[in-house]
Amino acid sequence: MSYGTFYAVSTGPGNPELLTLQALRILRNCEVILYPETEKNTIALDSVSEINPAQKTLISCSFSMTASKEQSASEYKTLAEKCTGFLKSGKDVAMLSIGDVSLWSTAARAAEIINKTGFEVKFVSGVNSFSEAACEAALSLCQKDEKLTIIPADAYLIEEKLESALKEEGTKILMKMGKKLKEIIPLMQKLNLIQNAVLVQKASLSDQKIFRAEELLKMTEEDFENAYLSVMIVKS
Amino acid sequence: MSYGTFYAVSTGPGNPELLTLQALRILRNCEVILYPETEKNTIALDSVSEINPAQKTLISCSFSMTASKEQSASEYKTLAEKCTGFLKSGKDVAMLSIGDVSLWSTAARAAEIINKTGFEVKFVSGVNSFSEAACEAALSLCQKDEKLTIIPADAYLIEEKLESALKEEGTKILMKMGKKLKEIIPLMQKLNLIQNAVLVQKASLSDQKIFRAEELLKMTEEDFENAYLSVMIVKS
Repeated sequence: MSYGTFYAVSTGPGNPELLTLQALRILRNCEVILYPETEKNTIALDSVSEINPAQKTLISCSFSMTASKEQSASEYKTLAEKCTGFLKSGKDVAMLSIGDVSLWSTAARAAEIINKTGFEVKFVSGVNSFSEAACEAALSLCQKDEKLTIIPADAYLIEEKLESALKEEGTKILMKMGKKLKEIIPLMQKLNLIQNAVLVQKASLSDQKIFRAEELLKMTEEDFENAYLSVMIVKS
Repeated sequence: MSYGTFYAVSTGPGNPELLTLQALRILRNCEVILYPETEKNTIALDSVSEINPAQKTLISCSFSMTASKEQSASEYKTLAEKCTGFLKSGKDVAMLSIGDVSLWSTAARAAEIINKTGFEVKFVSGVNSFSEAACEAALSLCQKDEKLTIIPADAYLIEEKLESALKEEGTKILMKMGKKLKEIIPLMQKLNLIQNAVLVQKASLSDQKIFRAEELLKMTEEDFENAYLSVMIVKS
């Protein structure tokens, strides 16, 4: 009996229609599906409603955002061991990833660990949430000679690198803002960037919201609560 | 009778399986399909083979890469007029765009012009070619505190900004390299970046090629000919 394959599958920004035909085919063929679950949502799982998840072996996985390096390594090790059990018995395993799996994805990291233990892994590409955010705002991100910079804004703010990153030329995308969004908006005001900014929350989902320019200054507490699923587009 | 809608539709990197379900549904409903055609390929059209293009009104469009601002404006004006004819008669029009439409896309620019003349336009997101390139190379682009910069390398080389852009922190993606790839590789050698680089040509297509590290120094004339459809990933 041959071993199963581990697929790190991008589900796109959340709307089930934004799955690719390839992701759909692969998910239909996988018996075991791992999905990230946070306190607030199971968006990745909801985004694959097309495949009838009830017929699959579903495994929820959560990663603590604030884990130490050691704790994080241990969480991934546990996850990898769970997967290799299935793979050894010949079952294909898919791990879901919101957006595209090549960008800051736990599924990609899990795939790398599983691959090192000798199993075949495949990455399945998908629609980035910032692409969908731009489309929902009917915005072209860059002119043909402009660059695009995608910034993990929480880490950059903490390391005091966000201000200089925002001053660079080209279009900037701020992601992973989380609770820092409340500090990022005043920083953008200070840099005179509010006029150039659009925030898209929950792009492609039914409760999507778009805040353009001064609307960013009128965000409510509830809006800030949803910051985890927000993408900020800042044109130069 | 109501007017038609203009859709700027992302087809993904080229493989028909990388179309989203949403793009497929919209393309099936559009009577008129515009597709970019170059001397060398009709990749966007080939990527929508799922929709049976023969039943559609197909319109090829080409844009001169080296056009002056005036000539380019005139090309877009002609295209927009062609579309508004169909839209006025109530027909939905889709214009295809390889990769994702929010990044350097002629379809997005056409949509903006058509929207200004009062017609409804919609942007349909898709898989970026650099996402697929990373997946094909089984690479995670960034760690969680690293930024990603996507650079139109031809323009940056001409403006002598490529070297400093390559020296920035985080992962760099070079796109739109075209004939400049031959000059970019020696520059990367000078900057000691060859070891960190992977070039993916025609990502997702049957004649895809991947060049890792020193393999970049052994590229043939034919490989350089295909540079238009190449994505260079440079890890820091």
